[in-house]
Amino acid sequence: MHSFEELSAAFTERFENRHFPSQPASLYDPADYFLGLGGKRIRPLLCLMGNELFGTIEEDAWQVATAIELFHNFTLIHDDIMDRAPLRRGHKTVHEKYGISTAILSGDVMMVVGYEYIARVQSPHIRRILHLYNQTAIQVCEGQQLDMDYESRAQVTMGDYLHMIELKTSVLLAASLQIGSILGGAGLNNQQTLYQLGKNLGLAFQIQDDYLDCYGDATKFGKQVGGDIVAGKKTFLLVKTLELATEAQRTTIRRLEQAPAAEKIGGMLDVYHACGVDVWVKELKEQYRAAAWQSLEDVAVVSRRKDALKQLIDYLLQREF
Amino acid sequence: MHSFEELSAAFTERFENRHFPSQPASLYDPADYFLGLGGKRIRPLLCLMGNELFGTIEEDAWQVATAIELFHNFTLIHDDIMDRAPLRRGHKTVHEKYGISTAILSGDVMMVVGYEYIARVQSPHIRRILHLYNQTAIQVCEGQQLDMDYESRAQVTMGDYLHMIELKTSVLLAASLQIGSILGGAGLNNQQTLYQLGKNLGLAFQIQDDYLDCYGDATKFGKQVGGDIVAGKKTFLLVKTLELATEAQRTTIRRLEQAPAAEKIGGMLDVYHACGVDVWVKELKEQYRAAAWQSLEDVAVVSRRKDALKQLIDYLLQREF
Repeated sequence: MHSFEELSAAFTERFENRHFPSQPASLYDPADYFLGLGGKRIRPLLCLMGNELFGTIEEDAWQVATAIELFHNFTLIHDDIMDRAPLRRGHKTVHEKYGISTAILSGDVMMVVGYEYIARVQSPHIRRILHLYNQTAIQVCEGQQLDMDYESRAQVTMGDYLHMIELKTSVLLAASLQIGSILGGAGLNNQQTLYQLGKNLGLAFQIQDDYLDCYGDATKFGKQVGGDIVAGKKTFLLVKTLELATEAQRTTIRRLEQAPAAEKIGGMLDVYHACGVDVWVKELKEQYRAAAWQSLEDVAVVSRRKDALKQLIDYLLQREF
Repeated sequence: MHSFEELSAAFTERFENRHFPSQPASLYDPADYFLGLGGKRIRPLLCLMGNELFGTIEEDAWQVATAIELFHNFTLIHDDIMDRAPLRRGHKTVHEKYGISTAILSGDVMMVVGYEYIARVQSPHIRRILHLYNQTAIQVCEGQQLDMDYESRAQVTMGDYLHMIELKTSVLLAASLQIGSILGGAGLNNQQTLYQLGKNLGLAFQIQDDYLDCYGDATKFGKQVGGDIVAGKKTFLLVKTLELATEAQRTTIRRLEQAPAAEKIGGMLDVYHACGVDVWVKELKEQYRAAAWQSLEDVAVVSRRKDALKQLIDYLLQREF
């Protein structure tokens, strides 16, 4: 059994190997550049941990873990184009540095190279894994489309928003765990429990992310507090507030839309507090965190095999509140 | 055994079934719209014909044929964004009609749905097929990148240009035939011969396309003659001319770059003729056409099984000269 830190170090080292040919450099340098920006590599770790729950980590699990991380990075490259994001992890996004056409194409080729790692899977479950990987990829695309649709839609219910986050973020965490477990020979019950774990983990993480944007310690969090508010981005807090707000509060929110950044942040935080959304959102995260823990509890393997996953959940969800 | 027309009708009917869920419509309507613009469906037909050379067409071959056509359409949607093309088959391109973000994303999801058809393959050769499909997809991306790179590069040799066309166009025709044959149980020699056939067919077709843009009958061809010349696009004729031209001819070409459309077309055709490129390009096409026929000859199956492929080659390469 490996600890979270051991698996993280091992995957990072392995993932640093080249994934692309050297030529044409105009296509592959941008792809290498983006992977070089780093990341927490959570999804491949979930795949490896899902696998190790049921035995020794197999070569197949390393291949799929790599595929999943490449897929995730492909989505980030394309999402950055759609979101017109200038920066990712403090560095220029691919389209900013190399142009939109190259960003589209290097994302495309990164996705295909992901499938090339899937093609290396020797397990007889390859069709099942390819199918789950595809279904998940389709859902992630749907989530991104809904996210864009919601930007311009006046009314988005909490149900709509949860559904979008589930597709855009949670299902990939869920599928990573499940695929690892399939390769480990898990039964269907354990597979489904792990899928639920991943879904709840993803939701709890996104809720925390939205919370920290408003209430996080800027020095620890490394981002400007209130960035989502200034951008007018839909978040768990905003969507819930729009459900709860009185007519007077709605008028305030509309007025704040045109206000300068500092006033907008302060004003919106006041409305959140008045609606009780600052308390509600902490409870909501706690609810999904507890559900994730319960799923882990329910996985039918001996408790000590779950240590790495426990560490990962703690790492992801114990960020400063 | 089926004729070219029979296979074409059967694939078209099958391909008209829905490939996508209905929701979110903002993602899938653009994908459906683009597929509805039609096309010759040559690549899936090659897959089916490659399969039928060696026996009865298998369900697996239909699945992969569908995947290949979806992949091809995905590349067209993304290429249209990169080429800033307003029209495709006389209708608005996806990005013109729905915006760039949706065009990126509906292309992405179309590619993934292609892989979902691959996941349905029951043959024990699934890994081999997935690998060849991936390798080909990677090459197609490389070809598109080289095409963009060459647009802004002053010197492109015939070797460079051939390599780019091979990647961008030929390898997908080649792989379509080979995958069909793998599913049919073809031996390695036959597989490789069919791959060569596809590569030569693709090159002959692209050479013909470049030729017809200059010398085609506008009423039969359905396009404005000289479109490539006006756009300053690199073609077999332009690349060869730039290799052969005298200093005086180069000066003429540079002057024509700024000239009005009609003068530019007439002037460039004069230079092509003076360099003998109008004759050379017909010979070049003939050379690749003959090589394709030779490959078909070399496939070790009884001659009558080759009838549909003969019809397809004739259909593609006997366009009015």
